[in-house]
Amino acid sequence: MERKTSHRDVNSSHRIVVSLSCPDQPGIVHHVTGALFQAGGNIVESQQYGSDQTGTFFMRIEADVRLPTVDVEAHLRAVAQQFQMDLKVWDADAPLRTLIMCSKAPHALEELLSRQHAGYLPIEVPLIVSNHTALKPLAEFYGVPFTHIPVTKDTKADAEAKLRELVAEHEIDLVVLARYMQILSDELCNELSGRAINIHHSFLPSFKGARPYHQAHARGVKLIGATAHYVTSDLDEGPIIDQAVTPVRHDRTPEELVQQGSATEAQTLARAVRWHAQHRVLLDGHRTVVFD
Amino acid sequence: MERKTSHRDVNSSHRIVVSLSCPDQPGIVHHVTGALFQAGGNIVESQQYGSDQTGTFFMRIEADVRLPTVDVEAHLRAVAQQFQMDLKVWDADAPLRTLIMCSKAPHALEELLSRQHAGYLPIEVPLIVSNHTALKPLAEFYGVPFTHIPVTKDTKADAEAKLRELVAEHEIDLVVLARYMQILSDELCNELSGRAINIHHSFLPSFKGARPYHQAHARGVKLIGATAHYVTSDLDEGPIIDQAVTPVRHDRTPEELVQQGSATEAQTLARAVRWHAQHRVLLDGHRTVVFD
Amino acid sequence: MERKTSHRDVNSSHRIVVSLSCPDQPGIVHHVTGALFQAGGNIVESQQYGSDQTGTFFMRIEADVRLPTVDVEAHLRAVAQQFQMDLKVWDADAPLRTLIMCSKAPHALEELLSRQHAGYLPIEVPLIVSNHTALKPLAEFYGVPFTHIPVTKDTKADAEAKLRELVAEHEIDLVVLARYMQILSDELCNELSGRAINIHHSFLPSFKGARPYHQAHARGVKLIGATAHYVTSDLDEGPIIDQAVTPVRHDRTPEELVQQGSATEAQTLARAVRWHAQHRVLLDGHRTVVFD
Amino acid sequence: MERKTSHRDVNSSHRIVVSLSCPDQPGIVHHVTGALFQAGGNIVESQQYGSDQTGTFFMRIEADVRLPTVDVEAHLRAVAQQFQMDLKVWDADAPLRTLIMCSKAPHALEELLSRQHAGYLPIEVPLIVSNHTALKPLAEFYGVPFTHIPVTKDTKADAEAKLRELVAEHEIDLVVLARYMQILSDELCNELSGRAINIHHSFLPSFKGARPYHQAHARGVKLIGATAHYVTSDLDEGPIIDQAVTPVRHDRTPEELVQQGSATEAQTLARAVRWHAQHRVLLDGHRTVVFD
Repeated sequence: MERKTSHRDVNSSHRIVVSLSCPDQPGIVHHVTGALFQAGGNIVESQQYGSDQTGTFFMRIEADVRLPTVDVEAHLRAVAQQFQMDLKVWDADAPLRTLIMCSKAPHALEELLSRQHAGYLPIEVPLIVSNHTALKPLAEFYGVPFTHIPVTKDTKADAEAKLRELVAEHEIDLVVLARYMQILSDELCNELSGRAINIHHSFLPSFKGARPYHQAHARGVKLIGATAHYVTSDLDEGPIIDQAVTPVRHDRTPEELVQQGSATEAQTLARAVRWHAQHRVLLDGHRTVVFD
Repeated sequence: MERKTSHRDVNSSHRIVVSLSCPDQPGIVHHVTGALFQAGGNIVESQQYGSDQTGTFFMRIEADVRLPTVDVEAHLRAVAQQFQMDLKVWDADAPLRTLIMCSKAPHALEELLSRQHAGYLPIEVPLIVSNHTALKPLAEFYGVPFTHIPVTKDTKADAEAKLRELVAEHEIDLVVLARYMQILSDELCNELSGRAINIHHSFLPSFKGARPYHQAHARGVKLIGATAHYVTSDLDEGPIIDQAVTPVRHDRTPEELVQQGSATEAQTLARAVRWHAQHRVLLDGHRTVVFD
Repeated sequence: MERKTSHRDVNSSHRIVVSLSCPDQPGIVHHVTGALFQAGGNIVESQQYGSDQTGTFFMRIEADVRLPTVDVEAHLRAVAQQFQMDLKVWDADAPLRTLIMCSKAPHALEELLSRQHAGYLPIEVPLIVSNHTALKPLAEFYGVPFTHIPVTKDTKADAEAKLRELVAEHEIDLVVLARYMQILSDELCNELSGRAINIHHSFLPSFKGARPYHQAHARGVKLIGATAHYVTSDLDEGPIIDQAVTPVRHDRTPEELVQQGSATEAQTLARAVRWHAQHRVLLDGHRTVVFD
Repeated sequence: MERKTSHRDVNSSHRIVVSLSCPDQPGIVHHVTGALFQAGGNIVESQQYGSDQTGTFFMRIEADVRLPTVDVEAHLRAVAQQFQMDLKVWDADAPLRTLIMCSKAPHALEELLSRQHAGYLPIEVPLIVSNHTALKPLAEFYGVPFTHIPVTKDTKADAEAKLRELVAEHEIDLVVLARYMQILSDELCNELSGRAINIHHSFLPSFKGARPYHQAHARGVKLIGATAHYVTSDLDEGPIIDQAVTPVRHDRTPEELVQQGSATEAQTLARAVRWHAQHRVLLDGHRTVVFD
């Protein structure tokens, strides 16, 4: 995309992120770092992982370069071809265009907006979409346009069509479901594959589906959790990006678990969005590689 | 049991633990503390909980008393009758007679024995039973008798009969399954109800049954856990006493999860045994009340 | 205070909180619960602690009562006198009147306001005071009046006089320093003793004073922390209410520690304010008893 | 050392660890990975870090190679010279020869020995040295020779001379002070610089010196901690490798803190020893880089 490969003054350096995956074999690191070296790059962060399960090699590099990003990418393309890589290059300081979806509960949205505002999340939020209007004042406080798209059984297809338009119109890179209480259609899940993140309010795979805190209370667990995962058409089965838990005592009611767990949800989601927006999350089949 | 109610010199005080549960109603605390006050007791720790779900009131009191425990108990009996209490009284410094069962993995057994040795666990261990001989040297190091009871499909009934005898002969209060890799029969589970604790190597209800670390790896979770629970005939479904988790990264193999998780298992089990041995765990239906 | 002891319809029950401390001796619990029983109270939560160091007994009780709070308090006064108690009674559902002070950093203020808004914090906030105007929009978003009181070396005395007036005028129970970057005078610290809470951005007693994250970075610690404590005239030496930490890696700059630590600060402060507002924190000399 | 560079059959691959530090500049990664590629190596793990404070670049690589380690090292020497590197190469599966020192408390020693026994710690322990005899049975259980070197003010110099002999005789790579309750002389600290690890039973820099749990209790902290650090002649001031904390309540006595904290100490020490023995810890001035 154009906005990710802007031309720059060649005398000043800027930071790029390279992520790649390919079948594992000797020489990958040497050739990639060689291409960067030839492009005048200085590597400032680098991580790699070879998956025994899938035989796949994963790598993420942050480097300061003087050439325009498009030219660096050109240097890397030859290596990518040689090793059959899925390779991507980003400007590190280009915030990810993120659409946030929410319903009535404010905590996850609030965490994202306040963290973005504080510089913790390298995202820009051109739009918030909700099936309710309850969180419109919060959006206004942060100066983010808010679009109300009500959803009923009958209007769901139309609502998703409208959402698709907005995603295209606003050149959205990432959709975040910040306690959005509607299930997306299989088609939409597939279209957004790898670029939609949901927060589920349990420690998956425990307590999938509805009212997980009530399920947790009934089972008498001593920790409640939250799981940030990529959205797939299998509900609550997508690749997990991050999870966290918090201890609970016997004397907490289900409603208190809802209250207590909200902070864990919000922080887990914010962390996952941050990692994704920094291009730190790669997919290894149904699992994620997180170069945090 | 006689050993829990030993007679003592009336001039020196000793510490008792009282635990009770009954239908909730006003006046319970006042009457119980009144009976203790009349018995010359000074309350040093007290906790209570009223369960909205079951309408049950739970209480645990530690008190220093001068009267023999049997006499204090007599004072409390009238109150117990009035409020239809399930009431128990223990000498606080009488260690719980505990039989530990294990197989080949040493970490859970080692944690229990070293913690008992260090004074952290108020238990005495007259016997270790195992279906293997691998951990006999460890038992010998701690000076605990070790009985090898091999178990095959054909000998399982005999093995359990032998175990029953040992539990009776040694006046066992608590059976701890410290990564004992055999499933107890429903009959034995029922006989030991409320006095057998198991450690399961996952964050239940996720990953019940066999090879939970491999299940966890396949699902790509970012935390692995352990669950200490009372044994019931529903495998891995018993009331949960304690749980803990530890974070894992994408680059850990299932075998490394086994290794990494062992410390969490051992500590979670030790904590649950400690709470049980201090009479801090009460049953509220399928859930536990833990007065820690 | 009148607002804490409002009269109510005698037929409906309401919840009160009793907290007390006194020299330890037998019979305290029995007499206190007896007075509550006579007042028709049903105890729903109760905790106690006897401090070996100071010989002081502490207790907190939540009870549902039908009599007006003033009448329940009258029943308890006789017991209080007998045992030389410092005894207090509150309506459990009367929110604590809280004045929040802040400077430029929004995270602590935002956490308090959003948590209060969500019902987690039993406080009402009639006023925010700041030596800067940066957070005025945040106050407006939550509909809380915002008073700007600039502070310079020359105007400090006047600024504190103005603050005193506001505390009196708004019947403030609690002052919270939510990353307020001015040091209060010794006189004001003493006046607000036991009713002013500060958040310090380190794991005290490490890294007192200015720029604790920079100190932490220089020392190379592997955890950074936050400490919520009562304000005293000894800077960063007041009784600690709560502390939390978060792990940091070698590659974090001091600025990144500031960013990373802000969530820990905000949550630790919110927890401390919650406990204080629920009357769960009692002073045992320089230490706190927290009946959480 | 010979044992780190053993010759092997050239047809089978073996794993090496390379660690290096040097002034930061472009091209380092490319040249190092190039030398490894020429030596037929396949990189399986790689981490790097550029310190802004000291302008130093740090790197750790694990690679599978077919050439003997000495030959791989030869390939790397030219690069090392070009970039003024401090470069080290180890056989990854050569356990570090570790001497453990202890006094009377068993928990830290026990954790190390049991973890080593379970394969978690890549060390071998040819010798345990203690100024007491209390832990001799534990050493015997694990089959490790135990040398008693009593220390008094008068015999301290002799005791350290004896220790030096043993370190040389047993070709010791690492000395671990597992709650060894004697302070080493400045000379010995300097001799062992970078290869002696101590566990201090507080969250440094809080509570240096004697009886840290009693200091922690007196200050009323809500978390107690442990710090594993390299030994330097400045007591409790050495570079920190790892730290951990555990929450404590107001009702814990100093003795209970000692008991409760022991698990944290033992695990923190074991983790630090593991990282050191895997060559994951590099020194950046007074701070550590930990490539975990």
